Amino acid sequence: MTHPPLGDMLATLRGTTPLVHCITNYVAMNSTANLLLATGASPAMLHAPEEVAEFTAIAGALSINIGTISTPWAESMQLAARTANATGTPWVLDPVAVGATAFRQQVCTALLAYRPSVIRANASEVMALAGLASQGRGVDATASTDEAQQAAIDLARQQRCIVAMTGETDFVTDGTLHYRLTGGHPLMPRVTTLGCGVSALVAAFVAANQAHPLPATLAALACFSIAGSRAGEQASGPGSFQVALLDALYALTPNDLSSLSQLEALDAV
Amino acid sequence: MTHPPLGDMLATLRGTTPLVHCITNYVAMNSTANLLLATGASPAMLHAPEEVAEFTAIAGALSINIGTISTPWAESMQLAARTANATGTPWVLDPVAVGATAFRQQVCTALLAYRPSVIRANASEVMALAGLASQGRGVDATASTDEAQQAAIDLARQQRCIVAMTGETDFVTDGTLHYRLTGGHPLMPRVTTLGCGVSALVAAFVAANQAHPLPATLAALACFSIAGSRAGEQASGPGSFQVALLDALYALTPNDLSSLSQLEALDAV
Amino acid sequence: MTHPPLGDMLATLRGTTPLVHCITNYVAMNSTANLLLATGASPAMLHAPEEVAEFTAIAGALSINIGTISTPWAESMQLAARTANATGTPWVLDPVAVGATAFRQQVCTALLAYRPSVIRANASEVMALAGLASQGRGVDATASTDEAQQAAIDLARQQRCIVAMTGETDFVTDGTLHYRLTGGHPLMPRVTTLGCGVSALVAAFVAANQAHPLPATLAALACFSIAGSRAGEQASGPGSFQVALLDALYALTPNDLSSLSQLEALDAV
Repeated sequence: MTHPPLGDMLATLRGTTPLVHCITNYVAMNSTANLLLATGASPAMLHAPEEVAEFTAIAGALSINIGTISTPWAESMQLAARTANATGTPWVLDPVAVGATAFRQQVCTALLAYRPSVIRANASEVMALAGLASQGRGVDATASTDEAQQAAIDLARQQRCIVAMTGETDFVTDGTLHYRLTGGHPLMPRVTTLGCGVSALVAAFVAANQAHPLPATLAALACFSIAGSRAGEQASGPGSFQVALLDALYALTPNDLSSLSQLEALDAV
Repeated sequence: MTHPPLGDMLATLRGTTPLVHCITNYVAMNSTANLLLATGASPAMLHAPEEVAEFTAIAGALSINIGTISTPWAESMQLAARTANATGTPWVLDPVAVGATAFRQQVCTALLAYRPSVIRANASEVMALAGLASQGRGVDATASTDEAQQAAIDLARQQRCIVAMTGETDFVTDGTLHYRLTGGHPLMPRVTTLGCGVSALVAAFVAANQAHPLPATLAALACFSIAGSRAGEQASGPGSFQVALLDALYALTPNDLSSLSQLEALDAV
Repeated sequence: MTHPPLGDMLATLRGTTPLVHCITNYVAMNSTANLLLATGASPAMLHAPEEVAEFTAIAGALSINIGTISTPWAESMQLAARTANATGTPWVLDPVAVGATAFRQQVCTALLAYRPSVIRANASEVMALAGLASQGRGVDATASTDEAQQAAIDLARQQRCIVAMTGETDFVTDGTLHYRLTGGHPLMPRVTTLGCGVSALVAAFVAANQAHPLPATLAALACFSIAGSRAGEQASGPGSFQVALLDALYALTPNDLSSLSQLEALDAV
């Protein structure tokens, strides 16, 4: 690997507690804030058009998630994304269920114009964004990760951004370098909005490590993967899993990430 | 009992993971999604007028809860309910605190025109909907279940739907057949939005068992009742109860429901 | 101390289960409702302009938190605060991140005209409200409690209200009497919206003890402080802390508050 150790990314995050401006869906707000706090970042949720640009300008990163989108919120998201683009603030797009309705496709098309630093999505969403045929059925992934890797690479090249495609196996690409990450736990899809949370965590890591967006993204996913595995060992169901996940993120050390064995750099796909 | 075993209802739900379109209140969104995921259904929360009808048409069921209602949301709820009515998609109405303000009564009157498949409510709400005098004091039930059973039957007959009236004892009726269900745990009213969650769970069970809406409704309530009892045995307060409830819903088996002894079919009320 | 024992405040709350009308941010809604229920109050979240005044008039207290404010919500907050002011209903203002944007300052200025009974805020927010220079950076407190005590006293005198300034050490003043309260746990800032929750808890205690707003406010903070300390002893991270905090609030007894040793009445500041 040509990048700095992933553990350094976490150490920098812990040392700087980056302020992450989250404009996310109603379902995910509380859990996303708690995931950021447990890991060591500082979340702020606000969306009013009167203040959203002012706040994005002082945040370390912006995280936009379209889960419970409406026209007023879409307008605020555009204001925030435009500001991030203008000020060079890194920002992450989570295009929830973009394939499910025409409205979501319009909202995402408008947001992509402001050039997200990272797109964090599941396989169906990546395929929908890349313009490929996808049988999206809402918020769940139905395309396999393997089928979607080429779509992720195409999307990264089209948008000149990082694509972090998560699922049973995660696939991360900037269009040139590709990584595969395994881990996590089968209980993760049984807890709501963990994907939304990891998008915000990517924003936090990129905020804290602006010179290294690709390893920062990998570090965010690796945190979730390792903490998820550990939480799964302790949990007896999705309720106790959620609790254990927050505790595990809090307990993670930079060394846990640097000794990670489930990360694989791919030569070609 | 003349209906299929309740355990079959859960087996079908687990086998089909029905997509439940939830338009619910801000307080309940996260916990409702987690209750559905733990039990085995797939939640989706979205409400924009631009997409709400499009999505209801592809969902297995719709669940509408008016807890934090406002005029824009009420309009979206009507669009969704109208779609459900037109496409034959089962839908559940949870008329939170309908007796508390004139606005809630107007919203519910408009929604009832689209003929919900099931109304899930507490005794005060049932009495308010049935047009009976009720001293509703907001979101809590103050009328006793016994006083309200006749109101539930009247409402079921007026609306030609199932009424699932929950409380210390649950009462379920389609206007002709009546059931009483005991169980649960005294900690349940100390956790917010469990009633909202059971409404969405009813929608999930009815989605998965469209030919059997009455036993599907009973199965949803029985899941909550059994899981609640088990969670209560493990909990030392409302915090640990919430966690244990999700784990217990996840661990429930069809056999747990079929051997249920707390369900009583009533000849007359 | 010249006031009734703090334990009496909790006993009255438990005996009357006051109805608290909460108009709060999306992040805090669920956790605030659960904190109120665990302690023994009855939360209701609603905000539509069509019903908000009607509901405030029947509530025991109103709690307003501007975390995820927007213009429509600010208008509803003003309707509710105006009603509370007109009917003599106690109400609490939580001016989240008021120093961060001009919009928040405008919203708070409008709300202060309706004379909150209690302002619950962190040190940065108190200093911003009091018109002092403060380096607020969003939702976190960056000014030390010691620097901000004079601002709290000034604010209490300007607004003729109680100011409950929370942080590592809490400081409570009505402009004449001042109290300092220690306790809590270092994990508390790692869980989102606990400050929002304590604001609503203050509203609940003041609703139940309207003749004694100052000791009622102290009792609310003391509950959080004691329950937080106990939860911290059991927790292994922010996930298990949240669970243990709800259980600890539920298990608190009036005697726990009356034997409190961390409360200190201050002669002068």
